[in-house]
Amino acid sequence: MPRRAEVLRLPMAAPDDVASLAAAVAAGRLDPGAVVAVFAKTEGNGCVNDFTRALGVHALRAFFAPLVPEGALARIAMVMSGGTEGGLSPHWLVLSAVEEPHGTGPALAIGQARTPVLAPEDLGRRAQVESVAAGVRAAMAQAGLRPGEVAYVQVKCPLLTSARIAEALARGREPATRDTLRSMGLSRGASALGAALALGEIAPEVVREAVADVGLAHYARRCGASAGVELADHEIVVMGMSPGWSGPLAIDHAVMRDGIDVAPVAACLARLGLTGPGGLVDEAGRRRLVAVLAKAEASGDGLVRGLRHTMLTDSDISATRHARGFVAGALGALTGRTDLFVSGGAEHQGPDGGGPVAVIAERAGDVP
Amino acid sequence: MPRRAEVLRLPMAAPDDVASLAAAVAAGRLDPGAVVAVFAKTEGNGCVNDFTRALGVHALRAFFAPLVPEGALARIAMVMSGGTEGGLSPHWLVLSAVEEPHGTGPALAIGQARTPVLAPEDLGRRAQVESVAAGVRAAMAQAGLRPGEVAYVQVKCPLLTSARIAEALARGREPATRDTLRSMGLSRGASALGAALALGEIAPEVVREAVADVGLAHYARRCGASAGVELADHEIVVMGMSPGWSGPLAIDHAVMRDGIDVAPVAACLARLGLTGPGGLVDEAGRRRLVAVLAKAEASGDGLVRGLRHTMLTDSDISATRHARGFVAGALGALTGRTDLFVSGGAEHQGPDGGGPVAVIAERAGDVP
Amino acid sequence: MPRRAEVLRLPMAAPDDVASLAAAVAAGRLDPGAVVAVFAKTEGNGCVNDFTRALGVHALRAFFAPLVPEGALARIAMVMSGGTEGGLSPHWLVLSAVEEPHGTGPALAIGQARTPVLAPEDLGRRAQVESVAAGVRAAMAQAGLRPGEVAYVQVKCPLLTSARIAEALARGREPATRDTLRSMGLSRGASALGAALALGEIAPEVVREAVADVGLAHYARRCGASAGVELADHEIVVMGMSPGWSGPLAIDHAVMRDGIDVAPVAACLARLGLTGPGGLVDEAGRRRLVAVLAKAEASGDGLVRGLRHTMLTDSDISATRHARGFVAGALGALTGRTDLFVSGGAEHQGPDGGGPVAVIAERAGDVP
Amino acid sequence: MPRRAEVLRLPMAAPDDVASLAAAVAAGRLDPGAVVAVFAKTEGNGCVNDFTRALGVHALRAFFAPLVPEGALARIAMVMSGGTEGGLSPHWLVLSAVEEPHGTGPALAIGQARTPVLAPEDLGRRAQVESVAAGVRAAMAQAGLRPGEVAYVQVKCPLLTSARIAEALARGREPATRDTLRSMGLSRGASALGAALALGEIAPEVVREAVADVGLAHYARRCGASAGVELADHEIVVMGMSPGWSGPLAIDHAVMRDGIDVAPVAACLARLGLTGPGGLVDEAGRRRLVAVLAKAEASGDGLVRGLRHTMLTDSDISATRHARGFVAGALGALTGRTDLFVSGGAEHQGPDGGGPVAVIAERAGDVP
Repeated sequence: MPRRAEVLRLPMAAPDDVASLAAAVAAGRLDPGAVVAVFAKTEGNGCVNDFTRALGVHALRAFFAPLVPEGALARIAMVMSGGTEGGLSPHWLVLSAVEEPHGTGPALAIGQARTPVLAPEDLGRRAQVESVAAGVRAAMAQAGLRPGEVAYVQVKCPLLTSARIAEALARGREPATRDTLRSMGLSRGASALGAALALGEIAPEVVREAVADVGLAHYARRCGASAGVELADHEIVVMGMSPGWSGPLAIDHAVMRDGIDVAPVAACLARLGLTGPGGLVDEAGRRRLVAVLAKAEASGDGLVRGLRHTMLTDSDISATRHARGFVAGALGALTGRTDLFVSGGAEHQGPDGGGPVAVIAERAGDVP
Repeated sequence: MPRRAEVLRLPMAAPDDVASLAAAVAAGRLDPGAVVAVFAKTEGNGCVNDFTRALGVHALRAFFAPLVPEGALARIAMVMSGGTEGGLSPHWLVLSAVEEPHGTGPALAIGQARTPVLAPEDLGRRAQVESVAAGVRAAMAQAGLRPGEVAYVQVKCPLLTSARIAEALARGREPATRDTLRSMGLSRGASALGAALALGEIAPEVVREAVADVGLAHYARRCGASAGVELADHEIVVMGMSPGWSGPLAIDHAVMRDGIDVAPVAACLARLGLTGPGGLVDEAGRRRLVAVLAKAEASGDGLVRGLRHTMLTDSDISATRHARGFVAGALGALTGRTDLFVSGGAEHQGPDGGGPVAVIAERAGDVP
Repeated sequence: MPRRAEVLRLPMAAPDDVASLAAAVAAGRLDPGAVVAVFAKTEGNGCVNDFTRALGVHALRAFFAPLVPEGALARIAMVMSGGTEGGLSPHWLVLSAVEEPHGTGPALAIGQARTPVLAPEDLGRRAQVESVAAGVRAAMAQAGLRPGEVAYVQVKCPLLTSARIAEALARGREPATRDTLRSMGLSRGASALGAALALGEIAPEVVREAVADVGLAHYARRCGASAGVELADHEIVVMGMSPGWSGPLAIDHAVMRDGIDVAPVAACLARLGLTGPGGLVDEAGRRRLVAVLAKAEASGDGLVRGLRHTMLTDSDISATRHARGFVAGALGALTGRTDLFVSGGAEHQGPDGGGPVAVIAERAGDVP
Repeated sequence: MPRRAEVLRLPMAAPDDVASLAAAVAAGRLDPGAVVAVFAKTEGNGCVNDFTRALGVHALRAFFAPLVPEGALARIAMVMSGGTEGGLSPHWLVLSAVEEPHGTGPALAIGQARTPVLAPEDLGRRAQVESVAAGVRAAMAQAGLRPGEVAYVQVKCPLLTSARIAEALARGREPATRDTLRSMGLSRGASALGAALALGEIAPEVVREAVADVGLAHYARRCGASAGVELADHEIVVMGMSPGWSGPLAIDHAVMRDGIDVAPVAACLARLGLTGPGGLVDEAGRRRLVAVLAKAEASGDGLVRGLRHTMLTDSDISATRHARGFVAGALGALTGRTDLFVSGGAEHQGPDGGGPVAVIAERAGDVP
């Protein structure tokens, strides 16, 4: 039977505040049993010691446990992305899939998968790339999406802590890095390469034993990866446009070449019919805009369009925090919204210093 | 004799890097004796312990000392603004005024003034407001600008340190605050009210003994104030369009109501002929864009367009740092540049959460 | 029937890691039903947006819920103190009270109480002081302690968030401050004055309508207060030496006049028989040392023994974070341990720049 | 002719505040022509973008330039160490060497040297180790010290910035790291191995092409290295006890095995006769204590004496900042002073997690 994807964007007063989800269930706008994934921007630092992600997961589990059948809880992907720098607004994105008797596709399709637990010494190495590629393929299969139909792959991946590093060393295995913050970038990069492999965006021979040895010119155009201390495997959600799905939602995507390269995103928003005469999303478009997923990072050469930036030499604020707040401003200017899922660290996700963007919107004809 | 204003935007590899100024002098593009003011975005935290501003001043003094006559050094306003969050690029803006035999105004006019040293206990109080108002009037007189012709007033104002607070207390005087970071906001707010008073934007009876008691609905629309530990008085630079000045430069201004309210700025850029069909500054416009001066701040109610932001509850990153990086993204998206003079803390500078913006550009006809 | 106090100090791998508690229960070393309070040092920033405290509470509630009778959960005080700067080690302190047929006091006695929810506009005002004083009296009564027998009062108190401030303003009530970080200090100060009042350390007329108006020369000598976003009332735990309690544990206390004033603490440790010939806690003493509770803060005059410190002018790191790491080093040098409950912000808790310390230890004769 | 070393410890109100030096010159207590080196603890973050070090150097150069002969300025080593976390107090240490007709050694001896500029691609590699070793030998020769007489070698070494990395890459050379913060640790480690080589503390075959490949069990016991953006070569100062020098000053040293291992330092202070009955430095000792130089770092295994620390997983505060504030507390407790030269990052300087300490004091008999 055809399926229909639903996406709710809900506010969050704190990382453990699920009141807006409860209200949606009470109002009949959300069927807990249909939930495939929950994304959230939480207000931590988005780095190693960001426990707002774990707190969000605690709250979600406690919320869903009494509402879904035994065993179903583990199948809900919970992708917490820390960091709401600049004016970013913490929020939940609840993705559901419901049976739909009368298909009218193509429409937004959603699939999800989980990989096995990753050994600490495999992080940032070929084994991680291949594990994620297999997971992406499984999620595509679940959604019935072919590689060319995929608009975005969202991956939540693990990181190394002092304890995990010590555990690997105790077994005589050397991790790819002993720097916990750096492990986040390696994990994101490996995940993105895995998605790119599954989507056919890179050739298998591009992948090397160490992800750090893969040139940044090789990247995924439709994947955002986010690392967190709260999991040891990968949670993968694939989204695309499928003739087998129906409903009012559409998804489109773009690639920014740097943090202020909004023209491709403006074109994407225009294709979705969201922009007004001045090129910015107008009031009507804002009502139909459901979600913006984007990656942000500081370019490795220390430059934006030839001008020096200072994100990589600031020892007080992590470069990922700088990048999130900056890209939030750029996309906020364009969309007039601040509840954007801007995630930091775009290694192998778009070109160096840039990043992929996905936009989910209701189609014009479908809104009263 | 009529005057002509010149503005050079020059890169900076570090807060004490004046190589680009030296190159401009060597190439005959900069006459040290004509310099009225130097603005700089330096890469510190922009808060109390930002010593990049002092380092910039040290370097500028050492650079200009052998190039200008005895006594002239003190007349160059040096307005260092710390904080290049997000992708902001550290840079110098060198403002000069040269004699011009054949006036063809109106054109950009520049005047500057310095106030007497401010006693620590006067910071954030009526005495500071009135001192700045007098300074703004003096700078307008120097430039030959009337209040209605002024587009922007840039003020560099002092802050309180533990030592300055102790000094006041030792004399039996209680400062307006004992919180050094908070003193920056009070000083900026008092300075802005002073400018607003001189420009006729607020009525004198609005001012209260304590600046903290003045409602945020009272604000300057054409003033940016920046606090720093490196001075104890105020440096004031006034810019506007005057029929008595000539040359290719024009200045215009706008007010953002929040950090992503770019429409008024887009309109300002369009009036200056800098934008292309899509509403963004195009390549030709980018060549004629000389400087963007803007203020950024987190709104006091914790909201951007009804959505919660977390800038005021983040105890790791100061709200001013968040706001600068965010507004930098918004204005960078619009202009395609990152060497923007975005300064944090906009108390009484534009509406709460928003801020004034000024744009200096070469007129279309004047560029080959 | 007489009671016996037990205190377990247990490691914590993350703020939600209760494995060590589970192991203690499994080993019969911890009776969940006897737990009066759980203290924890968690690894957040200890400031406004420290969600590690909330995460710790989530984990504790989930842990204890199936182990204690309905209603008993709410009676366990959960005092999470964020911030493990320097070498501080995150840990749990589990305080229990068990029936003891044969009393051999005096020994450590423990009582706890909770106040009503505090209105945001009462924070930092007389109403908060009086509410805490009443709570301390209730906790003393529960433990059977007289004021002179009390060694330490631990208070967990609320803070203001942007949302709580807005809520008060919406009701037409102005909070004592609109600065969320500053609200933590006011709340701690009011709580300490409340404890001092209940212990007879200050006279009632010392208290003023605004806590900010009470001079810092008025302070509690036996109270540590810690503010957190995770509660809206106060959790109060009182500890002392009572003839009505028995068991091997003793508690003693000291007051440091600044962050390196370890001599009074060394004397306290010596009174408990924990120090060796060199004046430091020796190996035998380390085994008997159960818990160290201390408060740390930056002195308001910016000096330590006449030498300038920079904790109050550092806009990158909160002064409370500096102070915790610094005092941790001082007490770590003395005790040879890093799992110390050093809490930041000692407003009205000891003299300005100093703070109270409590030490719990097993008595020499009681250790095999 | 014999020489006499003098060391002045002077306060600093800001990184460019040389008023205390000027006062010392005016009072005849300091002969500018005799100055060999100036050390300073400045109040920056001690990491990559710490411009307080550059500001200190600017101020020192401007101060000494008119007071010393042409060319002599370059021979004064200026070792700025950023970071005054915890209660550390910013201060200058001015080291001089004066002719002394009547030798009464042994006494403190001081020598200094500068290496050639280091190419960015040599940082963290064997070339840097050997360059520093040669510099240490030159400084020992200048002071007339043999390896066994040396108590401490202070090295100021360079770091990599985005610009320096790009410059090397443009020449086709890959630096040892592209992470600017990490480059500081590699540079410090290479410098320490260089000193250890020159002092005979490690065998030449221990050194590898990449410093990162040298095990942490190989370390210098008498060297502190500090990295800074303000230089591209190395400034080296060697101190020891030499029969060829005279005067009241003595130097002794110790090695801490972790951040709270104060017993070896207490023994060192006792050998210098500075401690009282309780084992802490007493009032008389405090008057004779001239300088404490120490290194601090977070242990790589994430543990202090088996207890977990969180310094390496804190993405808000650099581990070096945590470590400085923590060790400052430990040494402050022991000495009763906060103007201690505690420097962060002790790679190959003492055992992992510990660090070397040197103490300079006036001998008991020499103080009236």
